[in-house]
Amino acid sequence: MSKITDLRGLFLHGLKDLYYAEKQSKKTLSDMADKATHADLKSLLKEHGSSSDTHLKRLDKVFELIGEQAEGVRCEAMDGILKESKHLMEEVEDAETRDAAIVFSAQAIDHYEITRYGSLATFAERLGLEEASELLGETLGEEEETDERLTRLAEDTLNKKAV
Amino acid sequence: MSKITDLRGLFLHGLKDLYYAEKQSKKTLSDMADKATHADLKSLLKEHGSSSDTHLKRLDKVFELIGEQAEGVRCEAMDGILKESKHLMEEVEDAETRDAAIVFSAQAIDHYEITRYGSLATFAERLGLEEASELLGETLGEEEETDERLTRLAEDTLNKKAV
Repeated sequence: MSKITDLRGLFLHGLKDLYYAEKQSKKTLSDMADKATHADLKSLLKEHGSSSDTHLKRLDKVFELIGEQAEGVRCEAMDGILKESKHLMEEVEDAETRDAAIVFSAQAIDHYEITRYGSLATFAERLGLEEASELLGETLGEEEETDERLTRLAEDTLNKKAV
Repeated sequence: MSKITDLRGLFLHGLKDLYYAEKQSKKTLSDMADKATHADLKSLLKEHGSSSDTHLKRLDKVFELIGEQAEGVRCEAMDGILKESKHLMEEVEDAETRDAAIVFSAQAIDHYEITRYGSLATFAERLGLEEASELLGETLGEEEETDERLTRLAEDTLNKKAV
């Protein structure tokens, strides 16, 4: 990592971190969709996986807007979240509890992205990068919506089945 | 980790994970408070550190309510978030950008706790553990409030200084 000396540097670092995080989490979400049993959960996770592509395209655009090469840097936070999700999957024995555990893990992935997109959108605004801020804000809104849908699915259906 | 076979098992695992996460993040928040320059950020982080004690006491109580020993299990997600925060601190060269980076990192810690307390409060409710659900919900509310205060401080003051 090159040294960070101002908000623009922190913004660029955060973009690279998210670029890596989106790519890595996409693989895990696809794996979770395969392992999920409940049809609604399966389809929500598949949709989530394909929205990662849209999010990556928006990040490409933001890199372009600031005249930087789109690239990822290793995100230890997302690596940790995904490692924990994988290990949790391995420990759960029955299909219904696994569905509840998948939501539990997918929401941790979402919340990491929510906090990062939130910070980056406000950094972009402060840096006068209006279009970048709007693109990041769009993804933030989608991540928040997915998180709410996961909560509703867990509360209304999955947790009940896992009791 | 012992095998998880139902929602109660997932709930217990989540409690242990958060117990570890609160203890580890407390140390990092205290280190961040030492490194922060802006007085409001310093005091918010110190307050955050002491609220971790309250959160741990509530977790103790929840363990007691379900007749289990209060103990942590290694939380790879929080380990990753804290490792990334530490490395980011090392890369930032000036005090004002460091303050913005500290908020960036502290909010990632908060968001992990927000998603976990949210899931655990709904698990407890589903399991008929009303008092446990209330205790977890109280901490959830405090984490959300801290997150909002960090956002306001970053937007109103810190990001401006770091440009």
